[in-house]
Amino acid sequence: MNHRIVRTRSIRPPDPAALETFGRLGVATVHEAMGKRGLADPVLRPIYPGARIAGRAVTVLSHPGDNLMIHAAVEQCGEGDVLVVALSSGSTDGMFGDLFAAALKARGTRGLIIDAGVRDVADLTEMGFPAWSKAVHSQGTNKLNPGSVNVPVQLPGVTVRPGDAVVADDDGVVVVPRDEAGAVAAKAQSRADNEAEKREQFIGGVLGLDLYGLRPKLEELGIEYVDAEED
Amino acid sequence: MNHRIVRTRSIRPPDPAALETFGRLGVATVHEAMGKRGLADPVLRPIYPGARIAGRAVTVLSHPGDNLMIHAAVEQCGEGDVLVVALSSGSTDGMFGDLFAAALKARGTRGLIIDAGVRDVADLTEMGFPAWSKAVHSQGTNKLNPGSVNVPVQLPGVTVRPGDAVVADDDGVVVVPRDEAGAVAAKAQSRADNEAEKREQFIGGVLGLDLYGLRPKLEELGIEYVDAEED
Amino acid sequence: MNHRIVRTRSIRPPDPAALETFGRLGVATVHEAMGKRGLADPVLRPIYPGARIAGRAVTVLSHPGDNLMIHAAVEQCGEGDVLVVALSSGSTDGMFGDLFAAALKARGTRGLIIDAGVRDVADLTEMGFPAWSKAVHSQGTNKLNPGSVNVPVQLPGVTVRPGDAVVADDDGVVVVPRDEAGAVAAKAQSRADNEAEKREQFIGGVLGLDLYGLRPKLEELGIEYVDAEED
Amino acid sequence: MNHRIVRTRSIRPPDPAALETFGRLGVATVHEAMGKRGLADPVLRPIYPGARIAGRAVTVLSHPGDNLMIHAAVEQCGEGDVLVVALSSGSTDGMFGDLFAAALKARGTRGLIIDAGVRDVADLTEMGFPAWSKAVHSQGTNKLNPGSVNVPVQLPGVTVRPGDAVVADDDGVVVVPRDEAGAVAAKAQSRADNEAEKREQFIGGVLGLDLYGLRPKLEELGIEYVDAEED
Amino acid sequence: MNHRIVRTRSIRPPDPAALETFGRLGVATVHEAMGKRGLADPVLRPIYPGARIAGRAVTVLSHPGDNLMIHAAVEQCGEGDVLVVALSSGSTDGMFGDLFAAALKARGTRGLIIDAGVRDVADLTEMGFPAWSKAVHSQGTNKLNPGSVNVPVQLPGVTVRPGDAVVADDDGVVVVPRDEAGAVAAKAQSRADNEAEKREQFIGGVLGLDLYGLRPKLEELGIEYVDAEED
Amino acid sequence: MNHRIVRTRSIRPPDPAALETFGRLGVATVHEAMGKRGLADPVLRPIYPGARIAGRAVTVLSHPGDNLMIHAAVEQCGEGDVLVVALSSGSTDGMFGDLFAAALKARGTRGLIIDAGVRDVADLTEMGFPAWSKAVHSQGTNKLNPGSVNVPVQLPGVTVRPGDAVVADDDGVVVVPRDEAGAVAAKAQSRADNEAEKREQFIGGVLGLDLYGLRPKLEELGIEYVDAEED
Repeated sequence: MNHRIVRTRSIRPPDPAALETFGRLGVATVHEAMGKRGLADPVLRPIYPGARIAGRAVTVLSHPGDNLMIHAAVEQCGEGDVLVVALSSGSTDGMFGDLFAAALKARGTRGLIIDAGVRDVADLTEMGFPAWSKAVHSQGTNKLNPGSVNVPVQLPGVTVRPGDAVVADDDGVVVVPRDEAGAVAAKAQSRADNEAEKREQFIGGVLGLDLYGLRPKLEELGIEYVDAEED
Repeated sequence: MNHRIVRTRSIRPPDPAALETFGRLGVATVHEAMGKRGLADPVLRPIYPGARIAGRAVTVLSHPGDNLMIHAAVEQCGEGDVLVVALSSGSTDGMFGDLFAAALKARGTRGLIIDAGVRDVADLTEMGFPAWSKAVHSQGTNKLNPGSVNVPVQLPGVTVRPGDAVVADDDGVVVVPRDEAGAVAAKAQSRADNEAEKREQFIGGVLGLDLYGLRPKLEELGIEYVDAEED
Repeated sequence: MNHRIVRTRSIRPPDPAALETFGRLGVATVHEAMGKRGLADPVLRPIYPGARIAGRAVTVLSHPGDNLMIHAAVEQCGEGDVLVVALSSGSTDGMFGDLFAAALKARGTRGLIIDAGVRDVADLTEMGFPAWSKAVHSQGTNKLNPGSVNVPVQLPGVTVRPGDAVVADDDGVVVVPRDEAGAVAAKAQSRADNEAEKREQFIGGVLGLDLYGLRPKLEELGIEYVDAEED
Repeated sequence: MNHRIVRTRSIRPPDPAALETFGRLGVATVHEAMGKRGLADPVLRPIYPGARIAGRAVTVLSHPGDNLMIHAAVEQCGEGDVLVVALSSGSTDGMFGDLFAAALKARGTRGLIIDAGVRDVADLTEMGFPAWSKAVHSQGTNKLNPGSVNVPVQLPGVTVRPGDAVVADDDGVVVVPRDEAGAVAAKAQSRADNEAEKREQFIGGVLGLDLYGLRPKLEELGIEYVDAEED
Repeated sequence: MNHRIVRTRSIRPPDPAALETFGRLGVATVHEAMGKRGLADPVLRPIYPGARIAGRAVTVLSHPGDNLMIHAAVEQCGEGDVLVVALSSGSTDGMFGDLFAAALKARGTRGLIIDAGVRDVADLTEMGFPAWSKAVHSQGTNKLNPGSVNVPVQLPGVTVRPGDAVVADDDGVVVVPRDEAGAVAAKAQSRADNEAEKREQFIGGVLGLDLYGLRPKLEELGIEYVDAEED
Repeated sequence: MNHRIVRTRSIRPPDPAALETFGRLGVATVHEAMGKRGLADPVLRPIYPGARIAGRAVTVLSHPGDNLMIHAAVEQCGEGDVLVVALSSGSTDGMFGDLFAAALKARGTRGLIIDAGVRDVADLTEMGFPAWSKAVHSQGTNKLNPGSVNVPVQLPGVTVRPGDAVVADDDGVVVVPRDEAGAVAAKAQSRADNEAEKREQFIGGVLGLDLYGLRPKLEELGIEYVDAEED
């Protein structure tokens, strides 16, 4: 595989209505709607609480501790995109900071997912540019090694293809393959409607044991209700 | 050991006045008052800062990635309880989310301690239902495997028995055996009074070396005061 | 090496103007200005977001789970200092809490860096005394073992000498050797000025590829621009 | 709880025939025979491969990095015992080395389980004294802090009571409560006999799908057999 | 994605000559020959030293702690295959033991790669059935949850497709996409020949600095040769 | 600090007799003889059991995943040296393999300590070239980044200066400052003589409680001897 930069404009984007749905409903609901697939490992955490984004993946495969390809990727990022940076080997170096965030925010890019470190997090928090990373680390970078933009990459636990939908919030990061986005969005919405209804019932005192009909399951598993022995 | 659900109403609760004291004084003070026992390992962390709870433990022993027994436990939870979920094997799956939180909050339950993952943390934060967990993770669950409610369980570093007092805040989680609750509360209060007094002295410039009489200890250990060599 | 307490007043402090610059510019900039040296490993994290400090290091080499030498160090701490605690062996015990923080704050000390645990973090947050630690943990301590104050110590990834400048913020912790403080401050300021200018250009749409002249590098590395294949 | 040393001779031992069975069949079989309970977390690993022991637990609750109570425990250890060392807080210090091993071996003690570090592992390997620990570490210890011998202690994932049966081999460590030892040994033997038979069948080409009747389960779960699409 | 079992006989195997080359040359050489791609993260370690295998991947996507699909996969494994087990969520449970190993060894299967735990490792070592896993753990399993056989799966750091070539030895695990196997084998052999020659030169005293012409690089980077200052 | 290569021949070596003593007595004894200083963190582990080396440190400060400076260091290594490689940022890449080992072995160099990964470990084991590393990993390297040879470097937990004595065995790695080597060797020998004597006493049944006079300590700490309660 030779290193290459695939132009974003040549890549079919996911359904915009699906992205809107994903951004409203969030990671846990989308993950369930996909049949419990697509989730990144929980080592990727937001740098500040409360952000929720959904967008088209612009992917980078980078050498550890080298931000050359992130510079190349910025040019490929635009309105509604999410920059996804994977590495060819493990590192927590702070490959992304406030200058990149300023540039991407100006281009309408929605956030960053990086399997490495982020720095200048106070600035990113202040400017409201969210990032999910496996570390906060100031360790600086160089610009020497080749890599690729918009090729399939591996985050911990999930593959991302350019043009996939990426959703991230306080619960983590989930990836929806582009061509499933519409169907997943429909299921996610229906799940969310259903959960809203259940929530009311739970608040009203209905038990999951009854709502989901779990009492026979407990019985089938031989689980008995008993009182505590005198103690 | 067969799986079973022990009814909470058959379990003697800890002293309510002790719980009130624990909820006011917090984990570090209670832990010291117990003679430095009862602390869970620091892998259990709050999902948002600033919460402090104390309540009666309703315990669950669950299969990893399975929330069947949490449903069974909800029925056993009431006013002033804390739900404590332990697993039969290691997992970070997100076994608890906003529907459970809504149900428990409606029942007056004070919070969750779980040796696994939590999801919907933005919702839990908004509704003010605190949770201490070893991960934030959206990974979904099934409802297939047996487990128990209100049996003794192992959190990392500490055993919890149903009816024990559980205290949790930004500093972690501590467990007070039910029958020690009153005595520990008394010691904790006395410790807190003593610390309030010391705090004033420290702010006024008194040194711990003098307040605790540590200077002779330094001398006994052969520690000398010297000036820096020319450098 | 015998244990000893070196009086802070006998130690030459770093340039106050440099400290002011470091406290304004923060860890990432200072680390870059030092030629990417001096950074502690990212396991040391702030207990609350938003703090930024720079000060003179007063160092402690302590036995794990023993706060005797921290008491001795308080007397050596004053206005503008940062207390740096290293251990003779690994531990996450909560060796520092609100009483120490109250005492140090009253003395004008700016914060704590500790290769162990901190407790009473809600109190420290409320009083605005920042700390960087590898854990939040209530585990209590004793006062039995010797150690030293104001000797060179090892934090994860970096050595700290008494009198060095220590800078800490949301991005981590960096150490500037005392005698380099002035020169590093000058470079850091120049770097910050330069970054402010670049930030404006990035926000205006200039690309790093052009600003840093990276296009020839991409070409030299044989990276081609291509369109996505039909998919 | 005051610190104390409970004399081993006052503690009822587990059934010797059960210990013999456990030592022959090993951890995985015993763990299954207990209904998948009693297993320590897999962080405890043998210092050399190939050892398998079963014996009566003599327990120690020790301060981290302090071997005073291990000295006290040696006197309580005899023929057929296993020394189990738990700590009041996390540490990897090397609290056990060749002198302890020589002393215990001379007393007929079978091995060590320690939730900390071990040193002199080349010597222990040469003398054939097995140990399960969470680290190999030379970090030395002192003899200053109180603890207890023969009280219930917590290993990662499991509680050990003095007089329990402890089994350890390359697969890890499992604890059988004393009063269950006989029953568990019977089940373990029956399980081992059954497995020996199955092993022959598997080697002869019988499939688990058929032996355990799993094909209907696959069908019930809706899993279809298909051929690969042209690729 | 529905769960399914894809018959191995419908999957095109990699070039047998390439497999023979990979098994002779090992992971490090194959990884280099692929342009430094295809390597699993170093968390997957062999259960005993000295094994080296190369074979066709038969893949399993399994629920954590459930070995139902491994039973289904055994039927799909034959001469020269390597069983690759990935999970839908993180777990270290011991999902594979001596009965599976006996069955697979009888079928000519070469070994196991599993992103979970293995047990009965003394038996596997004795019978010479190698396994690479992220833990040794006795924790038992159930047979309740669906999964798939011979679908693309994610190991930590690398995707495996059924029919890919998998190579594993003391250095770790590398995956060669089926259709690249021949080309990679050729490059690997040429690399090995070249390394054999270099090894002789190095043993004869030739320096890498000269053999690879690195002295000008050092000069270009401004690295000077100096003598130590008097100390 | 500019990058530089300091010629080993300009660096004063440690006392050869001390090195001989260290190589005979090993890490745990040397560490104790130094007053429990100098130990690297236990993350550095030997790639095979049974090796024990002591030699003069030739140090390398390298960029992660780059072996240019290791090539430069080989020229500086000779009879009786130990190569010590530290990185400017965290990485587990396999920066050292069989070609380097062959070259160094031919030069009489005794082994490798590296705060990164090693590969070709089967070859290194076969040729008897020992290495202590934090990972075994095949991940390949490049030759692009500057670094230094024979400057002070940081291993996890300890600083190494060129010319220091480095000792490594199954118990880990310890560093003795060059100018302390003679004194430490004398203490280590005396300690070893003393331990040999104690070992005989322990084997003969003498207890540490008596040999070290610890019974009064137990009494002073209020630890009572009791019998188990009826259970």
